Amino acid sequence: MKIIVEKDYESMSRVAANILLGEMYQDKRVNLAITAGTTPIKMYEQLVKDVKGKSYLDNVHYYNFDEIPYEGETGYGVTMSNLNRLFFEPAQIKLENIHVLDETNYQHQDARIKQDGGLDLILLGIGADGHFCGNLPGTTKFEDATSYVGEDAIPGMKEILLSEVGGVAEKRPNFYVTMGPKSVMASRKIVLFATGKKKAAIIKEAFFGPVTDHVPSSLLQTHPNLTLVLDEEAASEIQGFI
Amino acid sequence: MKIIVEKDYESMSRVAANILLGEMYQDKRVNLAITAGTTPIKMYEQLVKDVKGKSYLDNVHYYNFDEIPYEGETGYGVTMSNLNRLFFEPAQIKLENIHVLDETNYQHQDARIKQDGGLDLILLGIGADGHFCGNLPGTTKFEDATSYVGEDAIPGMKEILLSEVGGVAEKRPNFYVTMGPKSVMASRKIVLFATGKKKAAIIKEAFFGPVTDHVPSSLLQTHPNLTLVLDEEAASEIQGFI
Amino acid sequence: MKIIVEKDYESMSRVAANILLGEMYQDKRVNLAITAGTTPIKMYEQLVKDVKGKSYLDNVHYYNFDEIPYEGETGYGVTMSNLNRLFFEPAQIKLENIHVLDETNYQHQDARIKQDGGLDLILLGIGADGHFCGNLPGTTKFEDATSYVGEDAIPGMKEILLSEVGGVAEKRPNFYVTMGPKSVMASRKIVLFATGKKKAAIIKEAFFGPVTDHVPSSLLQTHPNLTLVLDEEAASEIQGFI
Amino acid sequence: MKIIVEKDYESMSRVAANILLGEMYQDKRVNLAITAGTTPIKMYEQLVKDVKGKSYLDNVHYYNFDEIPYEGETGYGVTMSNLNRLFFEPAQIKLENIHVLDETNYQHQDARIKQDGGLDLILLGIGADGHFCGNLPGTTKFEDATSYVGEDAIPGMKEILLSEVGGVAEKRPNFYVTMGPKSVMASRKIVLFATGKKKAAIIKEAFFGPVTDHVPSSLLQTHPNLTLVLDEEAASEIQGFI
Repeated sequence: MKIIVEKDYESMSRVAANILLGEMYQDKRVNLAITAGTTPIKMYEQLVKDVKGKSYLDNVHYYNFDEIPYEGETGYGVTMSNLNRLFFEPAQIKLENIHVLDETNYQHQDARIKQDGGLDLILLGIGADGHFCGNLPGTTKFEDATSYVGEDAIPGMKEILLSEVGGVAEKRPNFYVTMGPKSVMASRKIVLFATGKKKAAIIKEAFFGPVTDHVPSSLLQTHPNLTLVLDEEAASEIQGFI
Repeated sequence: MKIIVEKDYESMSRVAANILLGEMYQDKRVNLAITAGTTPIKMYEQLVKDVKGKSYLDNVHYYNFDEIPYEGETGYGVTMSNLNRLFFEPAQIKLENIHVLDETNYQHQDARIKQDGGLDLILLGIGADGHFCGNLPGTTKFEDATSYVGEDAIPGMKEILLSEVGGVAEKRPNFYVTMGPKSVMASRKIVLFATGKKKAAIIKEAFFGPVTDHVPSSLLQTHPNLTLVLDEEAASEIQGFI
Repeated sequence: MKIIVEKDYESMSRVAANILLGEMYQDKRVNLAITAGTTPIKMYEQLVKDVKGKSYLDNVHYYNFDEIPYEGETGYGVTMSNLNRLFFEPAQIKLENIHVLDETNYQHQDARIKQDGGLDLILLGIGADGHFCGNLPGTTKFEDATSYVGEDAIPGMKEILLSEVGGVAEKRPNFYVTMGPKSVMASRKIVLFATGKKKAAIIKEAFFGPVTDHVPSSLLQTHPNLTLVLDEEAASEIQGFI
Repeated sequence: MKIIVEKDYESMSRVAANILLGEMYQDKRVNLAITAGTTPIKMYEQLVKDVKGKSYLDNVHYYNFDEIPYEGETGYGVTMSNLNRLFFEPAQIKLENIHVLDETNYQHQDARIKQDGGLDLILLGIGADGHFCGNLPGTTKFEDATSYVGEDAIPGMKEILLSEVGGVAEKRPNFYVTMGPKSVMASRKIVLFATGKKKAAIIKEAFFGPVTDHVPSSLLQTHPNLTLVLDEEAASEIQGFI
């Protein structure tokens, strides 16, 4: 486990962007699974400048690792809409380099990625509850590949799904799909980043506590090539371990 | 997970030897952690022929991953004695290429291996109870690095220790040391091999069942570079999954 | 440069087979370019036993690296006929795993291999004149990719071509195609093997002498991952360098 | 060969820095050989910000690849003085992470690097005459390891040496040392960068012309993992090839 602690969100985002770029600048197909959400906003801002209009990065392929569909709509769900807005559109990534995961193909996601040569790197955020991708405590198990998670998977899931679609009841889906823990662990490299005090406790618990289903991301501490990229606040409870 | 099924113990052993050799023939230091026990007997027989007296393999370094000391003795314990007899001595491996783990240095094992460049490959057997190395159910946790396991770790441990030293009471130690699950997962490649009907059930349970502390080797199914080498009997309960 | 010297042709062939097998046993597509000719006869004999009927090796793809067509015939040329007889047929390699190079597609060979993920390993023999693949002195230059070599490329080429088709004049082609030095150097790993006294002088000249167009294989000594596999006779003039 | 063309010197320098950083952010020892001179000035300016005071980069080790001693002085020569000023001092690199090459140890440079695990990446500039490191046309041969080059190696060398020490006659040495072509090719990755119109012709000649001793860097086009990082001016004569 490599632990990188940077002063603040800005510099932590720069390091995360640099790690992705370091992977991209290769003379071969590179497969990246990247995260949506709020943590990566600043990273994508920086990355767009480095990636936009660069034909020498046509070797890079992108995969979303989870998706929450909008009920009653046929286009992209929450994750892909978010990735499009934050990165794919401003960076002008070609459609043929974007490999969409959704409810129509989730059962083939792992086979497709393997066929494409496997993931070189997966970039993850972490929830205060220890979730990564859509692996919330109780929804998936460590041995799960890409999975369907229904609205009854755990208590409160309907509310979570409602929140994900902005609180609009008629858009609330009754499921989502996500790469499971085993699918994520198959990546050759895992990078997990976090910012802010609100993540400090879970960073300690997930990476310096027990490996347990109750904290899904705790499994990641056993991956042979894991990098944590944190700002000082997110790292504030693990200073004694570094 | 790569699954290799061979007809019988003989051919399974040949494949295991070939995988080790493929790793060895490199122009750089290669670090291997290898198993003692009964499963590898035939493999070491074959490997000795390929390795003995070959100065072009001086780049290969060996690590034992557990040790059970003989009470009242100062020399090698059960594991190193076994490895010496099966492989190191007949293959004439130089002493400086053998890095002994024992009770005097187990707390430094992980740091030492990292300093040496990390393990390229660890070769494991599996117990009918799902243990690998000295990680018996209840003795270590997934998050453990190289560990000390005392005679009271689990019920029956004293009997196990007695059995390991050939039933000679005065030689029974009150502990052993072992690389923990997290230490093993840090290897760039994991190879686990098994032979015979008696391993068929645990192979299915460990690699196609839940990831759980009750079956320590179940964690290995989440490693990004795991190879199983089985004979047909050991693979007899997983034919439907391959 | 890793140099492996074995006692005789038999054991040298076993090591060469082991190196190929070590590459094959992976959980991803593996691309190998392999040589025809007389040197590999014993290696293929051994390899066939390890590969025949093994569905777990369906991940391995094969490329021939040169071809001499039979004039007036439409089927395989000299190289593919030879590879079929020595290896592909007895080992029952599936047609979809064999990627034929010939005069119809040689201009796309490098792009195709790159598209397929690049070569993991290329296995080469060496001629007494220092040639590898069809890169005879004077026919190609170090900077050449896969190339067409005509019967007038160098003096004596017509005789060479005649000899390659067994001395049957009406089968003598007026060209051949070959991966060029630059194409071969693009492989992640290069293994070159040689047997017998008759190769001793060129082994010394190519790998311990100047890098020069006059000895095409001398370029290979600059590859970052080159392994020589020799028997004692082939290594008899380089003992002072090892 | 990966070719990256950026708009100007500034952005080209940013990409070069990113490639180095991508290599650095690993959980293992990383060995880099880096260039002095004028091309990297802007890159080091940027790199210093990313590297200074970062204890998480203590895994990175640095090697200079040539050295021109100051006659009559015992301290660092031209290259190390330059690297110190541009990078090591402002970035506060620890002394134990800097592995100095000079006339006292050049004969052991290749063995030392191999012992340290080999170079992960070497960053090179290119001269208008096609030289890289101290490999000027006529001074070394493709097969040379780290070498001593005397003042009579080629006509005009005394003037070159004089110029290198700022034209001060009493400081002019009568030799320099340099990693040779073969030593450089042994690196797992080679990055060569160039800026400005004055490099446009040699970039075309070296990487799209013949591999020849007259243009030492032409050898690099045969390396399996070469990346060119150019600004538009330096790439202005190769637009047809990309």
